[in-house]
Amino acid sequence: MKKDECIFCKIANGKIPSATLYEDRNFRVVLDVGPATKGHALILTKEHFDDIFDIDAETAGRLFSLASVVARAMKKVLHCDGMNVLQNNGSIAGQTVFHFHLHLIPRYEGDSVQITWPQGTLEEETKEELIQLIKKEI
Amino acid sequence: MKKDECIFCKIANGKIPSATLYEDRNFRVVLDVGPATKGHALILTKEHFDDIFDIDAETAGRLFSLASVVARAMKKVLHCDGMNVLQNNGSIAGQTVFHFHLHLIPRYEGDSVQITWPQGTLEEETKEELIQLIKKEI
Repeated sequence: MKKDECIFCKIANGKIPSATLYEDRNFRVVLDVGPATKGHALILTKEHFDDIFDIDAETAGRLFSLASVVARAMKKVLHCDGMNVLQNNGSIAGQTVFHFHLHLIPRYEGDSVQITWPQGTLEEETKEELIQLIKKEI
Repeated sequence: MKKDECIFCKIANGKIPSATLYEDRNFRVVLDVGPATKGHALILTKEHFDDIFDIDAETAGRLFSLASVVARAMKKVLHCDGMNVLQNNGSIAGQTVFHFHLHLIPRYEGDSVQITWPQGTLEEETKEELIQLIKKEI
């Protein structure tokens, strides 16, 4: 399925030009036009999926398999100090285009990427509740 | 391969107890002991891989396929407003345990997770250079 009004459907399927690093039957890898750092890339699905809750497990698997290959290639070429692999779901999580995409963000000393959270504690009661609830749904 | 001194090798392989949500031959899914938000989970490989540059493409694929299933289960149970799927590589990227792991961070209105970066611009010259360099390595 493609969504007519979705910009990432258009980019992934070549209807809008992009800085393409790689393309196959299922995916297109492009440079982000508003990069966090040098080499910031996105892996887009050619089919439309809103997010990780919507994508099928097989496509998700193929995509991340490709991500590991692209990450290695980027590290080799860019000589970055590290990398964040990030996939946002929902506005609250920073998703701005509602078509599944995976960010590959090379990290360099002194860059301005902020990925932080205060560490909470896992209370015994909450832990048991979550295990019982989530376990049976997987 | 397992690394004797690696804490995530021990957790993934059941040598240290953990709040396990799911386990199979290749992976263990556990609740993070210092959660960013309620339900923050980690997917650990049972084999030792340092990071995304080290993991093989097949294992990476299987892991993310599982991630999509776990994410859906978490969303259903937790009623979170969104989710960040995050995998850090290198100290600079926030990796603190040097054994491959994927974060599933449910997001809720008013939580304290910060994932931001200033958007740069993709200059024409840089774009062409990166395309040429990265393309041939993938």
